[in-house]
Amino acid sequence: MSQAITPILLTPGPLTTSERTRRAMLRDWGSWDADFNQITGRIRQRVLDIVHGQGTHECVPMQGSGTFSVEAAIVTLVPRTGHVLVPNNGAYCARLARICKVLGRRLTTIDYSEAQQVSPADVDRALAADPSITHVALVHCETGAGVLNPLHEVAQVVARHGRGLIVDAMSSFGAIEIDARKTPFDAVIAASGKCLEGPPGMGFVIARRSVLEQCEGNAHSLALDLYDQWVYMQKTTQWRFTPPTHIVAALDEAMTQYIEEGGLPARGGRYARNCKALIEGMRALGLRSYLDEGLQAPIIVTFHAPVDPAYEFKAFYQEVKKRGYILYPGKLTQLETFRVGCIGHFGEAGIPGAVAAVAEALKAMGVKQVSEPEMA
Amino acid sequence: MSQAITPILLTPGPLTTSERTRRAMLRDWGSWDADFNQITGRIRQRVLDIVHGQGTHECVPMQGSGTFSVEAAIVTLVPRTGHVLVPNNGAYCARLARICKVLGRRLTTIDYSEAQQVSPADVDRALAADPSITHVALVHCETGAGVLNPLHEVAQVVARHGRGLIVDAMSSFGAIEIDARKTPFDAVIAASGKCLEGPPGMGFVIARRSVLEQCEGNAHSLALDLYDQWVYMQKTTQWRFTPPTHIVAALDEAMTQYIEEGGLPARGGRYARNCKALIEGMRALGLRSYLDEGLQAPIIVTFHAPVDPAYEFKAFYQEVKKRGYILYPGKLTQLETFRVGCIGHFGEAGIPGAVAAVAEALKAMGVKQVSEPEMA
Repeated sequence: MSQAITPILLTPGPLTTSERTRRAMLRDWGSWDADFNQITGRIRQRVLDIVHGQGTHECVPMQGSGTFSVEAAIVTLVPRTGHVLVPNNGAYCARLARICKVLGRRLTTIDYSEAQQVSPADVDRALAADPSITHVALVHCETGAGVLNPLHEVAQVVARHGRGLIVDAMSSFGAIEIDARKTPFDAVIAASGKCLEGPPGMGFVIARRSVLEQCEGNAHSLALDLYDQWVYMQKTTQWRFTPPTHIVAALDEAMTQYIEEGGLPARGGRYARNCKALIEGMRALGLRSYLDEGLQAPIIVTFHAPVDPAYEFKAFYQEVKKRGYILYPGKLTQLETFRVGCIGHFGEAGIPGAVAAVAEALKAMGVKQVSEPEMA
Repeated sequence: MSQAITPILLTPGPLTTSERTRRAMLRDWGSWDADFNQITGRIRQRVLDIVHGQGTHECVPMQGSGTFSVEAAIVTLVPRTGHVLVPNNGAYCARLARICKVLGRRLTTIDYSEAQQVSPADVDRALAADPSITHVALVHCETGAGVLNPLHEVAQVVARHGRGLIVDAMSSFGAIEIDARKTPFDAVIAASGKCLEGPPGMGFVIARRSVLEQCEGNAHSLALDLYDQWVYMQKTTQWRFTPPTHIVAALDEAMTQYIEEGGLPARGGRYARNCKALIEGMRALGLRSYLDEGLQAPIIVTFHAPVDPAYEFKAFYQEVKKRGYILYPGKLTQLETFRVGCIGHFGEAGIPGAVAAVAEALKAMGVKQVSEPEMA
């Protein structure tokens, strides 16, 4: 298929990458070769730079999707007798909780609705009430609905109680600030195919070195043993098992562009502008976003589905796709919604173009009543 | 770096892919999109075709390197109370054994030297002696030294005893015949970046459907739960967690070329010719291959290092690399060796070119005495 008709991905990742990033995959690399291992080393350093973690933390890359890195962090950092508290306000928190359960780690959750933020005061109370809790595992941006959770405040609470904090920052890393000098954490987890705008296929865990050093033998997995991966990489500069060489090279190229763009403030600023333009443009069509403004992360926005019986998500998806944009289904359990991502490499016209495509798609479907009449 | 100077990878993978395969990575795909999921479906069918497993087996793809798929097969197919017999004649057998141990599955090994083939008679005796053994895990081509193990004969023995057989066919799949109609197995494991000549980043397990259906709840891993991946994929056509979209698209393109080339007989034939030309060319330089001819798989060849004190692997590697070829270090525990792969997408001149580069490199290093004087 020709490049020209490739739709723009308005999804939480895989997302649209730059031509320059994709072209970095046109070369084969030997995984044992020093030229390749320099690339791995550079990515590890640049990831640490983003969180100001040089000297205190280590970046350990891991093959697979982001979820593989989340599981690697839990299985390696939480001892088999550990007890994890997961504040749960959406699908990715639920996945974190499921990972703990499947791994046989003791689990407690604090359950919220998908429209609520995690409350640091609730975490405080839970830790005070149960000294057996060893770790809190928090999703930074819960892309189920799109909520930004108060990472810094939760981190302060967890540190005060002397417990470990593991952060799934999959969809926020690189766009929303996480500063290891101010926000204490044991691990922050992210992946290649999100706000760094690389292709999907690898993740990484930024782990506190003093914690990681204590983790030998925790994992009952070889592939996902972060400690083993780290020790081997420190000794040899190589990955333990075959790395996804083309993905690594492309992520490196994407990170060069990230730095050229101006790093986190520029990347986060661009996404915030996208998010604002999206919500405003959709509101002008009568489509209401699901979350209160103060909770909305500038990553992905959940919209209420049109109430008109002529609306049906799959047909809507196809109509919008025909016009060059890929949307994402809703992930809420109770409500009919759809999601639109704000992240990825697309030009200034991306969001207005998507809004126009949505308008045309609804028209083509004969959708007239978009939202319930507003309460006066 | 320019394409023109990219060295040819004579390694057991990642290997040299075709320009056409790499160019398939120039497009972004939505992981929820039907166009992408058709690609996944096509790969799964074509993989089954290669082993004639349609109707009896299922191909379940898995994110990560091949080792991730090996661990996924063990953790999913072997119950927690299972007992695995690993006939061990090299580094990849040892890795299989280590996976069983780390996963907490009971393990027995039959230990061989790296120059020996696994013996079906030994497996027969071990299974007869210990009825608690539930599974045999065999490496088909042990790339540590390059030995081809007698898969068909071992499979007959295992079937006669009514136990399960799990085959790590990482480096043989697609080049050396495995026929599910004649060779009974519960699982065959391989990856994208080997004889199918795709880029690395995903693996797959070909599992007997009637066995896979019984595996719910065996895995104490979410990411590597093959059963869960399978059930979800059957229901939705999608991967459970973000797939490496560019790698999947490139593997699909590589498999199209595999079929165009003439499938397994053509691919295996090309590698066999490479292997023969390599061993003969190196022998003409005085470099002896490590294995007896009858044990040598046409995948990767181990050579004794030159005995001259002017020889040192790292310098040799650099000299050969300067001339456009990437070799691989030896992996034998007792002997100084190096390895040269026979697999990957390179033209007819690849092997003679590599032999010439080796000759020039040895000359540049001042290596005169290549081998011990032959015994008369």
